[in-house]
Parts: sequence; C-alpha cells; structure tokens
Amino acid sequence: MTGFGHVGKSLLLAGLALLAAPLSAEEKVLAPAEIVAAAPKADWVAIAPSDLLVMDLAPDAQGKSRRVVIQLMPAPFSQGWVSNIRKLAAARFWDGLSINRVQDNYVVQWGDADGDDKAKARKLPTDLAEVPQKDYTAKFTPDLFRQRYTSWGKRDAIVSVGPMTVGSALSADHSEDRSFADAYTVNVGFARGFPIGMSYKPRSNYADPRSARDDDRPDQVWPVHCYGMVGVGRDMPPNTGTGAELYTVIGHAPRHLDRNIALVGRVIEGMEHLSSLPRGTGNLGFYETAAERTPIVSVRLGSEVPGLPAYEYLSTESGSFARYADARANRRDAFFIQPAGGADICNIPVPVRRAK
Amino acid sequence: MTGFGHVGKSLLLAGLALLAAPLSAEEKVLAPAEIVAAAPKADWVAIAPSDLLVMDLAPDAQGKSRRVVIQLMPAPFSQGWVSNIRKLAAARFWDGLSINRVQDNYVVQWGDADGDDKAKARKLPTDLAEVPQKDYTAKFTPDLFRQRYTSWGKRDAIVSVGPMTVGSALSADHSEDRSFADAYTVNVGFARGFPIGMSYKPRSNYADPRSARDDDRPDQVWPVHCYGMVGVGRDMPPNTGTGAELYTVIGHAPRHLDRNIALVGRVIEGMEHLSSLPRGTGNLGFYETAAERTPIVSVRLGSEVPGLPAYEYLSTESGSFARYADARANRRDAFFIQPAGGADICNIPVPVRRAK
Repeated sequence: MTGFGHVGKSLLLAGLALLAAPLSAEEKVLAPAEIVAAAPKADWVAIAPSDLLVMDLAPDAQGKSRRVVIQLMPAPFSQGWVSNIRKLAAARFWDGLSINRVQDNYVVQWGDADGDDKAKARKLPTDLAEVPQKDYTAKFTPDLFRQRYTSWGKRDAIVSVGPMTVGSALSADHSEDRSFADAYTVNVGFARGFPIGMSYKPRSNYADPRSARDDDRPDQVWPVHCYGMVGVGRDMPPNTGTGAELYTVIGHAPRHLDRNIALVGRVIEGMEHLSSLPRGTGNLGFYETAAERTPIVSVRLGSEVPGLPAYEYLSTESGSFARYADARANRRDAFFIQPAGGADICNIPVPVRRAK
Repeated sequence: MTGFGHVGKSLLLAGLALLAAPLSAEEKVLAPAEIVAAAPKADWVAIAPSDLLVMDLAPDAQGKSRRVVIQLMPAPFSQGWVSNIRKLAAARFWDGLSINRVQDNYVVQWGDADGDDKAKARKLPTDLAEVPQKDYTAKFTPDLFRQRYTSWGKRDAIVSVGPMTVGSALSADHSEDRSFADAYTVNVGFARGFPIGMSYKPRSNYADPRSARDDDRPDQVWPVHCYGMVGVGRDMPPNTGTGAELYTVIGHAPRHLDRNIALVGRVIEGMEHLSSLPRGTGNLGFYETAAERTPIVSVRLGSEVPGLPAYEYLSTESGSFARYADARANRRDAFFIQPAGGADICNIPVPVRRAK
C-alpha cells in the first residue's frame, strides 16, 4: 500500500492494533531459511510435472551436465503464451537451438539465433495462438488469494491483518515510518505462489485519496519481473511474441518490463547455469559469434522427463510464508543490527524445493 | 516519498503543479541511453584516479585479461573503511589472494581464503582503523546535494521540483496513483553520484504524519546496496570489518544489508568478470576447493596504474540525470506500451563512462 491512494489510514491502524501481539521469543531469532526449513509439510504445494519445463544445455567445459527447471505460470496469468510453450516443447522446437544473448544485470535469452523466419520454416507449430496485449494482465477474482492482508511492521512488530502481503507501519515518533510501497504499481503481493502487481478500479470517493477503505479489491493483476522469472521475447508492439523466444532475469528486477512483456514462469533449479554464462559483447548482450552460444540439447515438459524429482513451493498463503516474509523484512538473526522494517517484493523469493 | 510520514500532500501538490510543463515532443521519445549520450560535457564529473581501485584477476580460460575497476565511495560516506582500503592497496595486501565466494543472486567476495588470522601474520597493515558501527551512516549536511527535488510522474508528466530524486504523482481518478516510496527506508535519492537512503529527525508536529512539510531535511544518510556496489565483509557485530575482505552485489539489490555493512564503492568497469564467475557449491556460495578460486594478480589505486583511462560519471544533480531518471521511470521508447510511472532507486544506475 502506498499511503496515498487506495489504502488509507484504516489499514495502517488495523496494523498498529496488532503490534501488541509480537512473535514469541523463540520465533524471533529464526532466520528466513530456518523458518522455511521448519515449515510443516501442509504448507508446501506440489508442482505438477506437466507444469514444469526442463531445459538441458550442452555440458559445460568440464563436461558437467547443465539442467534448468522452469515452473510455468499458473492461471489466470499468461495462459495463451503458456499454451504455446507447451506446443513448442511437444514439437521439440528448441532442441538444437541455443542461448544467444547474455546481458549483464539484465537477461539471458534463448531461441533461434537465425530469427523467426527461419524458425517458422523449421519446426514452429502452425497452431500457435496470437495472444493479445490485454493478456499481459488478468482480471482479479476473489479466489485468487485468500482475503488476508499481511503487513510487515518494524522489528518485533509483525502484523498480519487480512489479501495482500504489503503494508505500512507507523513508529512512535514517526521518525521511522514505513510504507512498503512499490515504485512500479499501486500494490504488490503474492498469488498462487508468484509475485504479482495489482491495480485498482477507480471509485467515486477517490476524489479524496484518504477515503479509500480496507475492503477495496484489486481490478487487474499481473506477474512481476523478479530475478529468475521467465518471459517471452517479442518485437515492437502490438506483437506480443509466441513463446518461441524466451529469457530469464539475471540481475536487479527490471520491473519496467511488467505489463510490457508476458511472463510465463520462473527458474526453480539450475539458475546458475544461466546466470554465470559469459556476457555477450554485441548490442544488447547478443553473442557476436556462433561459437559463443550455448547449445540447447532439449526442452521438454516435466511430464515427459523420466526420473525428474518432484518439486513443491511454500504456499504464499501459509503462516510459514507470512513469517518468512516478515523475517526477510525484519532481519533478526545475529548478523543484523538494523532490521529494515520492510522488503521489496523481489527480495522475498518464494521458496521452492525438491519434495521430501 | 512514502506518503505517510515525512512528506505529505504539499510536495505531492507541488509536483502536480508542474504537470503543465511537460517535456518537448522531441525529448519525449528519447530512450534513457540516448539521453545519457546527449548529455553535455558539463554534466559529467571526472573521477580522480586516486579514487579508483583497479583489480586485475588472472586471465580467463581463453587467456583474456580480466580487469575490474572500482570507484571508491566519496565523503562523507564510509571514509574510515575507504582509508583502510587505500592502505591495504598500498601494502599490496590483495596481490596473490583470490575470489573465494560466488553466491547466485547475491555476492562475489574476495580476500584471504585462509581467514583473517593468517592474513594478519601475512601483510596486513598494522595501522588499520577500527571503524565504529555508527559510521554506517553519515550526518546530513546541506552541501550534500543541491536543494532540488525531482519527482517522477506519470507518462509525459516529468516534474522536477526542487533535493531528492523521489516523489509522488496523483492521477486524475486516483486509480493509478504513484508513490515512489522505498520499501527499506523513509526516502532515497542520489548524492555525489551515489544512490543513498535517508532518515529524518522526529519533529514535534509528526503526531499527525500529514503535517510534514516540504522543507523537511534528512537527518542521517547512507549508501544503499544496488547491483555492483562494493562492501566490506565482517564477522558478527560490533565487528565492522577492516576492508581486507570485500564483496560486490551480483543480483537483486540486497537492501536488507543497508546500514548493516559498510559500502565503500561500486564497480564501474569489468563487472562481467565477477558476475559471470561459476557459483560456489559450498555454504553461502564459498568454493569448496582451492582450484575453483580465481586468483587476484594485483589490486592498486588508480593513481598507481600506468595508462589507466580517465573515467567520469553523470552528475546526479544535472538536468541530464533528471531526464535520464525520468525516462527510466517512464519508458517512452517504442518498445514500451505501459510506462511504469516510477522506478526503484537501484533501477536508475548512475551512468559512468570512459572520458571522451
């Protein structure tokens, strides 16, 4: 919540009211990773193998295998492109193609280095959808997340008040007030395990921004560009890309791409095989010679990969996630002397693991 | 500005008042890089060679040289550690040491892999200062930046009103209000070419947060952890590190480290030699074997390196920087269909180049 705009004083005060219920002494000292490790099995959500995309790169210089596992975006987000990607994987489109672009602090991109035309002549499925720009966002529906706000307050002041994991906290003398606003949109949070942005429908009483109420609901929702997120390369608008050309974020979250490019998933294992690739020296980080490109051996849906481990993510509506997010925003482990009292949405990466 | 807290409606309205003076049509279409390229020479600030730290790594597997150039932090920030670093470079402390840790989406760290004790017995200068925790921040003084606010508004609504490059914008129906707040502190901006965080002194009238006024001034200021920033490794507090153990950020800005670790500079050239290193497989990304470490050939102050190019940065108080920051917050180049209307402080990297 930004303070100005869609959530006013009432949420803030609701948050303050809960300051009287701090975490127990034992919980206070847990680092974020320890909270995740202690999360009960019930707080983890299985990821269906059919929702995974497994990319095997050529072995590295030492002969070590390089597998990248991507979790595809759940409905209602980007499903037109996700559907295309399933068809592309089924058609073995990426097999034998390569990683062609590595731009420092930005993206790694893969697909057909020779461009779309040749790709089309090659093995591009003929039934790919042309997805419209409007699908960069989805309509909010009440089932998207539970009606549960989590506001992160100052040290020892975790508050959990009822649908988005963003909030505000006032300090006693206002010298350390926090408003965990987002620089890119009115509000941010998590839905179905993914970080999202939200916009709100104008209401007549917004002539005075402070009149916004706690029960305001989002209008449009969309996934946001955090580290490791996977998106769809495209040319100029209104072209939105097919999904044949993909990239992942390897630097500081390029949030200006939100709602300008489709996000279709995130890397959940093997990110280091992409982030540590040599940077390209051409324009935009493209490799200047074919020899620099990393060959893609195959890309398959997880359901087609024998022996693939089972993966699960920490439910973003679980109490464990709320505590983890709070601990990310208020570092209390022994190393820290100055907990921030807030955290950027992209600094609360959703925990994903091999199922135990 | 966060909306709640230290800047209230008055700044917001001051910003709105300027919406009537949009950029010219020609300026509107310039991409951020184009604005930087067009900046007059007068908007660039020379970096003294004595304020550079030049780290030469062992050549890569193809025999290519790897040089990393670091700009040391200007006063009033972190000068105790910076002074130690000058002594360490003069003592050739790092020569023959190595890069020992590469943690994905976090940091690359270098120093003595055998730890402090051996280092001390080795060639650690005996006159290094023990810098106190309080020096993680500096006292604000009016000469730190001009009294000039820059607020970034919505598309075509750049406003430039008077010391920090952060602001708010209201939209006509409040459905797209923006408050470019920071999740980690009350306010952020730029001073002497570096991104900084700020806190404010409590004032008696802060009982009502909306009573804050435009002429409020920061109390404490400190550098923030953006991509490429260089910091000082340390053990548990109150130890603050000497500067012998350094790291740089290679992922999403770990802003929770702000005010918990000293920042002493930023990488201005050769970042790719660090960010593309193989990730360590040990705890915290430390390499598990000595063979994985990248040797450091030498670390010198720039004034000791013959033939070093001259470097300069775009003044963060220049009109060119204000336009560049606005363009980062409101992408108008042809690729973009949805300018964000705001930008994270770490998504406005200060342009640095070899002097022309």
